[in-house]
Amino acid sequence: MVFKKVTLIGTSTESFEDAVDSAVDRAEATLENVCWVEVEEMGVEIASVENREYQAEVEVAFRVED
Amino acid sequence: MVFKKVTLIGTSTESFEDAVDSAVDRAEATLENVCWVEVEEMGVEIASVENREYQAEVEVAFRVED
Amino acid sequence: MVFKKVTLIGTSTESFEDAVDSAVDRAEATLENVCWVEVEEMGVEIASVENREYQAEVEVAFRVED
Amino acid sequence: MVFKKVTLIGTSTESFEDAVDSAVDRAEATLENVCWVEVEEMGVEIASVENREYQAEVEVAFRVED
Amino acid sequence: MVFKKVTLIGTSTESFEDAVDSAVDRAEATLENVCWVEVEEMGVEIASVENREYQAEVEVAFRVED
Amino acid sequence: MVFKKVTLIGTSTESFEDAVDSAVDRAEATLENVCWVEVEEMGVEIASVENREYQAEVEVAFRVED
Amino acid sequence: MVFKKVTLIGTSTESFEDAVDSAVDRAEATLENVCWVEVEEMGVEIASVENREYQAEVEVAFRVED
Amino acid sequence: MVFKKVTLIGTSTESFEDAVDSAVDRAEATLENVCWVEVEEMGVEIASVENREYQAEVEVAFRVED
Amino acid sequence: MVFKKVTLIGTSTESFEDAVDSAVDRAEATLENVCWVEVEEMGVEIASVENREYQAEVEVAFRVED
Amino acid sequence: MVFKKVTLIGTSTESFEDAVDSAVDRAEATLENVCWVEVEEMGVEIASVENREYQAEVEVAFRVED
Amino acid sequence: MVFKKVTLIGTSTESFEDAVDSAVDRAEATLENVCWVEVEEMGVEIASVENREYQAEVEVAFRVED
Amino acid sequence: MVFKKVTLIGTSTESFEDAVDSAVDRAEATLENVCWVEVEEMGVEIASVENREYQAEVEVAFRVED
Repeated sequence: MVFKKVTLIGTSTESFEDAVDSAVDRAEATLENVCWVEVEEMGVEIASVENREYQAEVEVAFRVED
Repeated sequence: MVFKKVTLIGTSTESFEDAVDSAVDRAEATLENVCWVEVEEMGVEIASVENREYQAEVEVAFRVED
Repeated sequence: MVFKKVTLIGTSTESFEDAVDSAVDRAEATLENVCWVEVEEMGVEIASVENREYQAEVEVAFRVED
Repeated sequence: MVFKKVTLIGTSTESFEDAVDSAVDRAEATLENVCWVEVEEMGVEIASVENREYQAEVEVAFRVED
Repeated sequence: MVFKKVTLIGTSTESFEDAVDSAVDRAEATLENVCWVEVEEMGVEIASVENREYQAEVEVAFRVED
Repeated sequence: MVFKKVTLIGTSTESFEDAVDSAVDRAEATLENVCWVEVEEMGVEIASVENREYQAEVEVAFRVED
Repeated sequence: MVFKKVTLIGTSTESFEDAVDSAVDRAEATLENVCWVEVEEMGVEIASVENREYQAEVEVAFRVED
Repeated sequence: MVFKKVTLIGTSTESFEDAVDSAVDRAEATLENVCWVEVEEMGVEIASVENREYQAEVEVAFRVED
Repeated sequence: MVFKKVTLIGTSTESFEDAVDSAVDRAEATLENVCWVEVEEMGVEIASVENREYQAEVEVAFRVED
Repeated sequence: MVFKKVTLIGTSTESFEDAVDSAVDRAEATLENVCWVEVEEMGVEIASVENREYQAEVEVAFRVED
Repeated sequence: MVFKKVTLIGTSTESFEDAVDSAVDRAEATLENVCWVEVEEMGVEIASVENREYQAEVEVAFRVED
Repeated sequence: MVFKKVTLIGTSTESFEDAVDSAVDRAEATLENVCWVEVEEMGVEIASVENREYQAEVEVAFRVED
């Protein structure tokens, strides 16, 4: 069994959980067998957006076919 | 005065705060004089649970008797 | 263009987002051109406060005048 | 010349070398010009498998076409 | 669900896998519901032992009762 | 909005900027909406090349379609 | 042979050595076969104590019975 | 003798040295006794600027009056 | 409640405690509500001073007005 | 008593233990009083060798004469 | 095959590349079979030199005789 | 100008300063132009010595001839 990890940055104007979830949603829309997620960084974008935007950089691990 | 730290991983289907709180609740149920908590890692378990499960690994510091 | 970063620790009895926001609010009250925030540490203070207090140490980046 | 790196987690019930090799085998089955591998993390999965399973998270570097 | 982690250092004159396994064996002899292990450090003791002794510092995670 | 990051290693016999640029050029040739780059490692290859070759490992962030 | 490590924070109004020693004293009062100590963090508490209090977070390693 | 450090991010369309220098120039325009600089991060901004912009986050150390 | 942190480097020809204290003294002379200190780095300057000079880089945390 | 540490990278087509051992063998052939070894990095070289070559970067500590 | 690494700090009033090169030049003047270089730290010395001096701390790897 | 760094571990039954000093003394007995020292690790050896032995791992930087 082999897993692969990709790095995504999710964003949300609501919460860090939503930011993480948006990244997981994206992963599950394009990848099968998503297994777990590790949060690498959290931040807030302020200047270039209308409202504060919570951001979460995550590593998404998924099982690849043998 | 001496403090001791133990490492716990709390889980919640709701939020990272709930995941941290579940670890603190556990600590307070078994230890006296819990003082503070440091978050070490955050993640989400997906494959082995029904819904996404937020996880927080924390170090819980408590004061030990002299 | 030059940016400067300062380190603040925000607190909240509600959530980590509120803790981060309290630090950003403070930054915006005293600094102009706040651009983004990086979360450095998260924790919970227990012993010295009435309720658990979520804490977030953040680096706040802002643009300085040339 | 440009290289790209991908992150894989190999597994084996025998040894860490076999875990690393299973990730390299997977990489070589789907990528050309694999050049080197850096071990990032090692671990053992116990609860969800029949026998202990050695795991190695690796970064696999390969040369990409210009 | 809450997990706890303890830090052990296993030793072996044979291999790093054996060193890790000796720590896991010890954990399973004294703890229930051992789930996974993360390798933190590897080394070799030379001066104070007859033969070279491989060492592995590991964090052992186990599920605690609610 | 979701961003993805990939890890590339650019090379140049001239400078670290050129090494970074060669990785960015490669990214822009194959990806749309490249947003920013973070330098992870710098080095120089000597033995396997005719002249010293500056190398820069970078993480390239780009916006992915919703 | 297996070792275990616990994390303690010693305090002293005199010096960092005394802070480390207070943690080691505590460890030796409750554990047998204490072998070595690694200093993880040093700090000073000011606001909540009468005089400045030097603090040292240490990992204490001890040999466990087979 | 006491030193203080502030964190600045300099930018340049030319090189990392120029990015560092722009931060040092800013520091010297507002602070006396600037002593040395440590580079913390390097990056390139692409999406929000006309040309690629090299960036360097630096810690600037300066001597403060007794 | 919001805290701010500044980075100082204290020096002493006597000890690391004195080096830390000289940084704390400086902080207390210019800031109110100094709460705690975290030691970041320790070193010794030799070439540019008459006697060996112990140095401690610290982060000083203080409470800011709401 | 003073110890010194040198950094070596051992290689082996067999295993990480052999790679570490080749570095220790080299150290013991040129240095007296080798005491212990800390593993810093592990990797596999693929492109420039006939078979996969396991590599281990280690710090070797030895006691120096007073 | 065994490699050894030494740590050098090169300096230049021109650029980080020149600072790295000055360290590599020094290494090649005293060592055979220099293979590659990893940049560990970059900085600028200001107070003790006439002009700003770019500095690069590097690890130089070279092949040692069997 | 080029500097070189070597890693030493000094020991003392008295204090961390004495442990650092014993490493610096050793460096100055065998090397010219010792410039500065960075403390990497601190610890205490207990089991293999009569009294507790403070240890400090340091990097010693010295100027090498051109």
